[in-house]
Amino acid sequence: MMDCIFCKIVAGQIPALKIYENDHVLSFLDIGPLADGHLLVIPKKHYSRLDEMSGDEVAAVTRVLPELADAVVRATGAQGYNVLQNNGRVAGQLVAHVHFHIIPRMADDGLGYRWNAKKYPAGKDQQLQQQIIAELK
Amino acid sequence: MMDCIFCKIVAGQIPALKIYENDHVLSFLDIGPLADGHLLVIPKKHYSRLDEMSGDEVAAVTRVLPELADAVVRATGAQGYNVLQNNGRVAGQLVAHVHFHIIPRMADDGLGYRWNAKKYPAGKDQQLQQQIIAELK
Repeated sequence: MMDCIFCKIVAGQIPALKIYENDHVLSFLDIGPLADGHLLVIPKKHYSRLDEMSGDEVAAVTRVLPELADAVVRATGAQGYNVLQNNGRVAGQLVAHVHFHIIPRMADDGLGYRWNAKKYPAGKDQQLQQQIIAELK
Repeated sequence: MMDCIFCKIVAGQIPALKIYENDHVLSFLDIGPLADGHLLVIPKKHYSRLDEMSGDEVAAVTRVLPELADAVVRATGAQGYNVLQNNGRVAGQLVAHVHFHIIPRMADDGLGYRWNAKKYPAGKDQQLQQQIIAELK
């Protein structure tokens, strides 16, 4: 992907502050961090959205998340963290190359997901259950 | 975990609208959804936080995410989705059993992460890079 900034980071054409790297995965500091130590974890191969990846490919990326999260927590003293992966502009995805955010959290940091929970009308949940199951391959 | 609501769902002691299940993973509809089709994906074994799990255990859970996300998108017509996994009360974790949210997104739905990006002061990013790398095992 000639015009993908994350592919250019993988190829070494754009600098990044790398944290971890193996055959499948690269992790580096987000240059526009929401908190100190905000990490990105990306597959080296280009995919726009998670649903374009195979289960094995997702597994190869996510298996490094616990160790990276643990290291960020130890290094920053964070009390918790969010793992966030956005798919589509409507979902807040700014770079069209799959990336997992590890966002360290502290009390009263002003971050977090806008949590507007609702209740399903009677029967709507069972209807959705059947619709989603019908779409599983 | 006697008092864990998700362990009780895994054990069949509390009902849930199940979407998918294998030896390692259970997925079901969130009963307080942020959007129609909001799914939870959990390990059957109890862990409070992602950093308590091995890479293999995380991989076994996350390898089902692409297929589940694809099914939710097809069933709901969502334009995108967030995958979110919270660790710690300070990070918005309400049930202390690891769970990945798949949150379908539509334009102007009022959802999303509060995105207050900042810039690192000069040298702070390199300092954090070294501190995090030093904490990797």
